[in-house]
Amino acid sequence: MVSKNQIKLISGLHQKKQRFANQLFFAEGVKVIQELLQSNFELEHLYTTLNDFQTVHASKRTVINEQELKKISALSTPNSCLAVFKIPAEKEIIHSGLILALDDIRDPGNLGTILRLCDWFGIEQIICSKETVDIYNPKVVQATMGSITRVNVSYVDLKLFLAQTKLPVFGTFMDGENIYQSKLPQDGIIIMGNEANGISEEIEKTVTSRLTIPRFGELQKTESLNVATATAIILSEFKRNS
Amino acid sequence: MVSKNQIKLISGLHQKKQRFANQLFFAEGVKVIQELLQSNFELEHLYTTLNDFQTVHASKRTVINEQELKKISALSTPNSCLAVFKIPAEKEIIHSGLILALDDIRDPGNLGTILRLCDWFGIEQIICSKETVDIYNPKVVQATMGSITRVNVSYVDLKLFLAQTKLPVFGTFMDGENIYQSKLPQDGIIIMGNEANGISEEIEKTVTSRLTIPRFGELQKTESLNVATATAIILSEFKRNS
Repeated sequence: MVSKNQIKLISGLHQKKQRFANQLFFAEGVKVIQELLQSNFELEHLYTTLNDFQTVHASKRTVINEQELKKISALSTPNSCLAVFKIPAEKEIIHSGLILALDDIRDPGNLGTILRLCDWFGIEQIICSKETVDIYNPKVVQATMGSITRVNVSYVDLKLFLAQTKLPVFGTFMDGENIYQSKLPQDGIIIMGNEANGISEEIEKTVTSRLTIPRFGELQKTESLNVATATAIILSEFKRNS
Repeated sequence: MVSKNQIKLISGLHQKKQRFANQLFFAEGVKVIQELLQSNFELEHLYTTLNDFQTVHASKRTVINEQELKKISALSTPNSCLAVFKIPAEKEIIHSGLILALDDIRDPGNLGTILRLCDWFGIEQIICSKETVDIYNPKVVQATMGSITRVNVSYVDLKLFLAQTKLPVFGTFMDGENIYQSKLPQDGIIIMGNEANGISEEIEKTVTSRLTIPRFGELQKTESLNVATATAIILSEFKRNS
């Protein structure tokens, strides 16, 4: 049985403000919850309809029915379980290797997919502008499929961060160098821009290497790629010869 | 003013069955509608809140208010316009060049993003299994960002189609050849599998070349890539040396 206060708390965690105030977030589904439990995330409380997760201490585990799950879930078709975790302290930024910088990514699905890509390509650090969607947004957590436990995500003043770095800074534009013909290093910062507006003007000034993903076909009318698919192509290019 | 019958018709078009029965679909937003108008799609009727699209004949254009748009829109935050188009006759399948085959892609956003990718990489033909989400689903139309006008999409018995083709058939698996080290032709069929289950067993039997997108990093715990980002990496690899 889930109490009224618990419902109120979890419903609040749909909002960034409440997540920040309580320093809590939640995840849904067996796979993501298991990955969080196996990593360093600290469980606050688990709610399940299946009487599973028996290794979780009884004081932190409540078996609920489907109607109760529906009340606390962020999904239109709720999974079988939902778990509230503590937001961990921000880790120190890793200043080596390839770093992905996100300039105002707004769509939770895109951020989650990008995190999953970073995990696949061994990118350990993502730097986000303050306006980028919160990593603990339930839709982001869901879309990461567990990768949230393995990639370090930091929110910074992106302009300031890029102004101070000594690493080369890469961005993709229509007029850049063909990415397929560029020599790409294994240390550097790759900037991905906002879904509608691309890389913002003030961030563009910090770019030291302008790249282009070439278009093919006769028409070449497509104006842009989705930011997650563009990230996939760019990370694959940086890593394929590493 | 939009009539009750029009509202009923357009609401019906949210469902595949009604789209098929009426041979109509709808698109929302200035950009997508403009691309459809400029291509060979035949307009049935345009509804706009902005008194724009003045080149559309008055008999096919109705200025409506935002409340009316909300009633017919598939979006939680409706754009300024919605247009109903006739579903065009299926074009003949193009049997040369690179062809993308989709084995049961269920998510409309994924199909739309994949279409946009094909447009970018000059892939003219997509073959879909009958279970793949309908290309005229409003969420697919939206996610294509206009690419729907430039890529030929055909729904077929995929198993039969692949059994009869003389082209090489590519699929990605955990145990395939490293895609970065493979010689990739410019004629062939690339199969992408279902979001949860990958390529189905009976389709897997038709694959003549098994490929792998290598994982990087120490942990290598990510189990899979999102199907749209995997498609991005694969198409980029096939095209980069073309």
